[in-house]
Amino acid sequence: MKLFYLGPEGSYTQIAAELIASGEVLTPSNSIKKIITSVDENPKAKGIMPLENSLEGIVRESIDNIIRTKDPSLKIIKEVILPISHCLVTKAKDLNQIDTIYSHPQALGQCQNYINNNMHANIKIIATASTSEAVKMIQDKDDSYAAIANEKAASLYKINILEKEINDEPDNKTRFVLLGREQLEKTGNDKTSFAFSTQNKAGALVDVMSILKKHNINLSYIDSRPSKKVFGTYTFFIECDAYIKDTNLKEAIEEIKPLTTFIRFVGSYPKG
Amino acid sequence: MKLFYLGPEGSYTQIAAELIASGEVLTPSNSIKKIITSVDENPKAKGIMPLENSLEGIVRESIDNIIRTKDPSLKIIKEVILPISHCLVTKAKDLNQIDTIYSHPQALGQCQNYINNNMHANIKIIATASTSEAVKMIQDKDDSYAAIANEKAASLYKINILEKEINDEPDNKTRFVLLGREQLEKTGNDKTSFAFSTQNKAGALVDVMSILKKHNINLSYIDSRPSKKVFGTYTFFIECDAYIKDTNLKEAIEEIKPLTTFIRFVGSYPKG
Repeated sequence: MKLFYLGPEGSYTQIAAELIASGEVLTPSNSIKKIITSVDENPKAKGIMPLENSLEGIVRESIDNIIRTKDPSLKIIKEVILPISHCLVTKAKDLNQIDTIYSHPQALGQCQNYINNNMHANIKIIATASTSEAVKMIQDKDDSYAAIANEKAASLYKINILEKEINDEPDNKTRFVLLGREQLEKTGNDKTSFAFSTQNKAGALVDVMSILKKHNINLSYIDSRPSKKVFGTYTFFIECDAYIKDTNLKEAIEEIKPLTTFIRFVGSYPKG
Repeated sequence: MKLFYLGPEGSYTQIAAELIASGEVLTPSNSIKKIITSVDENPKAKGIMPLENSLEGIVRESIDNIIRTKDPSLKIIKEVILPISHCLVTKAKDLNQIDTIYSHPQALGQCQNYINNNMHANIKIIATASTSEAVKMIQDKDDSYAAIANEKAASLYKINILEKEINDEPDNKTRFVLLGREQLEKTGNDKTSFAFSTQNKAGALVDVMSILKKHNINLSYIDSRPSKKVFGTYTFFIECDAYIKDTNLKEAIEEIKPLTTFIRFVGSYPKG
């Protein structure tokens, strides 16, 4: 059985995959969209990808694609939260030598102040599909290049670390989610997420949320994602403290359905 | 009086600035954060920046910085919505010649399918601070480089357009907001936005939203932005159909205040 992760080797997602895997063959994929498509087309496969970072917020490519899979039984089945500690990986001996930095846009965002305060004004910032891809890309480059990535990637591709813990906030964490089809049992400390669009009616969103409250379900997260159809219309993605087989959640969902034009169960799993 | 916009010259934001300006001197700035800091430090200045795109959603750099200005009287005072039509700007005569594409991450996201379907697999994607910056950067490069930007930038920097309307969704729009200190009069078709954090108490967010509903205020948008302090805690950014001097909104805000640990008025202005 394959577990697709955001590669190449040495990515944070691979570290998360190793923690969460139970015997699957770890298979690198080069984009979040490709992971989701691979799992969507292969009923036995699983996938793991970042869903949220403590500084940058939700990973839009993950959520926008998870809620649009062809197989509606595909869902989030587990989560794992990892501390993220970025390093400046480079052949340079001195910060002044560096003209170009490669990394994933989220990692670049997490080190924005570090870059502004330590690099010269004409530094080139290049977005890569993952942090390990960034390290791989500077392998055959000279010492004017650097990557922002983890220690594992630096050691895997045998490039020095010039500085550690360069993220602007030391308490930087990322939540990774496992995509599959099985449903784990209730643990008592679970979260359930779903996505929906409401009818274009004043107060419809608040009505949905009031139904959750009426059934004593705490809403922990809400995000408005563009419907990608009409500007100013949204698909809402929510997370609440509940388990999918709880009676109160089932009742709430039945009450919510008539208020929506689209509703998609995204997953019910133990909190990481 | 200065109006700072996301430059350099030829950016979509400059086009929006020209539509919205009333005699101010248009002054390019090279990042959203710098625009907001410049306006924050200069009581007479205004700033304009993208806030939301119909495909990619809210521009996080804009909202995260607007709600954290030192001057609490700084706010959104106007909005303008522009159709966004991206072009492939390059010296190349043929798509196969192109090895590297520069553009702003949002523009790259809006042309993701176009890039995947038309460019070779090893294409390098480079993030720039704006679409016009991307065109400026390829000025002295050879025909293996391309930028994704608007027609104005192509003509300004005298580089050909190889293909027009390359955005994946033809109905691509961006909402730009004007930052300043004055308060426009009510038009009857206004929106008001604010940001807040609730006390860490189950149901607090739904309580806030129920108060809006009780006062017949329609909530049109809600987003959870990371508090950047504790993972899983958020600052909520909302927009509702109301005007700041309306009695029902004033009453609602007074009722909401005790439920929050932070609340910041972000603006009340005519819908664009």
